[in-house]
Amino acid sequence: MVTGGAGFIGTNLVGELESRGHEVISLDLYHTERDNYTRCDVANYRQLERVFQKWEFDYVYHLAAEYGRWNGEDYYENLWQTNVIGTKHMIRLQEKLKFRMIFFSSAEVYGDYAGVMSENVMIKNPISDTYQMNDYAITKWAGELMCMNSATMFSTETVRVRPVNCYGPHEHYSPYKGFIPIFIYHALFNKPYTVYKGHRRIIDYVEDSARTFANIVDNFIPGEVYNVGGRKEWEKDIKEYSDLVLEAVGRDDFLVTYKEAEPFTTKVKTMDFSKAIKDLKHDPKVSPEDGIRKTVEWMRWYYRI
Amino acid sequence: MVTGGAGFIGTNLVGELESRGHEVISLDLYHTERDNYTRCDVANYRQLERVFQKWEFDYVYHLAAEYGRWNGEDYYENLWQTNVIGTKHMIRLQEKLKFRMIFFSSAEVYGDYAGVMSENVMIKNPISDTYQMNDYAITKWAGELMCMNSATMFSTETVRVRPVNCYGPHEHYSPYKGFIPIFIYHALFNKPYTVYKGHRRIIDYVEDSARTFANIVDNFIPGEVYNVGGRKEWEKDIKEYSDLVLEAVGRDDFLVTYKEAEPFTTKVKTMDFSKAIKDLKHDPKVSPEDGIRKTVEWMRWYYRI
Repeated sequence: MVTGGAGFIGTNLVGELESRGHEVISLDLYHTERDNYTRCDVANYRQLERVFQKWEFDYVYHLAAEYGRWNGEDYYENLWQTNVIGTKHMIRLQEKLKFRMIFFSSAEVYGDYAGVMSENVMIKNPISDTYQMNDYAITKWAGELMCMNSATMFSTETVRVRPVNCYGPHEHYSPYKGFIPIFIYHALFNKPYTVYKGHRRIIDYVEDSARTFANIVDNFIPGEVYNVGGRKEWEKDIKEYSDLVLEAVGRDDFLVTYKEAEPFTTKVKTMDFSKAIKDLKHDPKVSPEDGIRKTVEWMRWYYRI
Repeated sequence: MVTGGAGFIGTNLVGELESRGHEVISLDLYHTERDNYTRCDVANYRQLERVFQKWEFDYVYHLAAEYGRWNGEDYYENLWQTNVIGTKHMIRLQEKLKFRMIFFSSAEVYGDYAGVMSENVMIKNPISDTYQMNDYAITKWAGELMCMNSATMFSTETVRVRPVNCYGPHEHYSPYKGFIPIFIYHALFNKPYTVYKGHRRIIDYVEDSARTFANIVDNFIPGEVYNVGGRKEWEKDIKEYSDLVLEAVGRDDFLVTYKEAEPFTTKVKTMDFSKAIKDLKHDPKVSPEDGIRKTVEWMRWYYRI
């Protein structure tokens, strides 16, 4: 099962899993034309239970979530209901049915931590290093704690993943999305956008992340948690990403406003991915240059420009 | 305003505040016969906003919450909706209306921490020292983080309090309550109950806690957080509390089953209350012996035995 299977990462993950011969049922909030798909709001226990009555699952990739910091602040009722109550429903069913779960957390759990974010930080560092700075981040950390508590009390088997700045095809534009789809969408439609200076990020092309997520079932280590993201040497300033987007779209930066660093947002996020590389054969191949080109192509196709 | 004003601590706090000449409006889930009271579910934004349209408040004591670990596990939908979404509603209104808030957290935020729990532990200690072990604890920590984030971003002024093992009159019995009301209720009704050995706790009589909570408005230090509980020298084994209850009720321990330490529950909870003593004139006077006697009297009266 892949919850959130019609979403951005979900769509890519379902494709990757099916290409390997897995039988996959995906779930999301709305009716779609897809095969092996069923509508289900994970925040409604009855709807979720119904899916488990119809099919039996070895593994559940639990991606269904309200995503993003400002989305979480503006739609916090949906955020807590889906991300936390929905995850608790899933855990209750897991305690009964004993499937293995892959819980999708986020690098947002590290809060404003300024050092290299290795998974250990959420174990050994002082609490105030990683106070989560927004409700979205808090829901993801709450979800992780709920998985850990269920493992302790009911021996459920879960692996947690913390993706960071994943981007690529099948991510639709909204003002609440990450900087890559926002830049591309605005550049394509010739609309003004803002670039905050002095923020450094590593992005990861979704097909690279999805391959790693799909590998989890081949080396499932209950209780483990993995950062998943791009290569260290790909770290760039947000402005450099904007430049790559403009180049791929074929525009100059006439529409771009440059501003000083955004308040309440981490300036540099440097992540350690060595655990995923070791256990999950994490091996990102698509450089930001290539990935942004592919994403621009997909958005051109999707929005018919 | 006192949310949860018809609950256990709320009822005592409203009495204390009114005795000092404060004008108090209290809120809770159901209609009551009380004066200066209105029904309001804090999880429903419209109901809460309506109260703020009718009255203006300088201080909000936000106690409305689903309480207790097992209650939170069995009724987790209500738990998250009230404790977290309800608190977020309150914070949104606070950002607009600028009242000062006293947020009621819980000593449960310290998780299974084995050392002396001073407020600093939730700042300086390694994260895994205090992984919250149940959803109730996670909601309380989430609420604290939300208060802190709102203070950073919108300059809201909030004081957080972490009561621990508060007991006394106006706490009705349910199987989800703390060990003191459970012991007393069972002893009074001649019903069997279980005492887990090797757990040490400090209890605090609610009138002592409530006086300290009422003091907060006289020395309100935004951003501060306080443990509030009984005197260090009152720390006792759960069995000793059971013996005090039996003595007050006038029974021997014929109905008591003694068991080894309960799994997944902190064995010893030693708290540091020096900050509340310094800033809030915290000064517990009622010993466990006297407090238990008074609580037994109240329960006899309430349940007409």
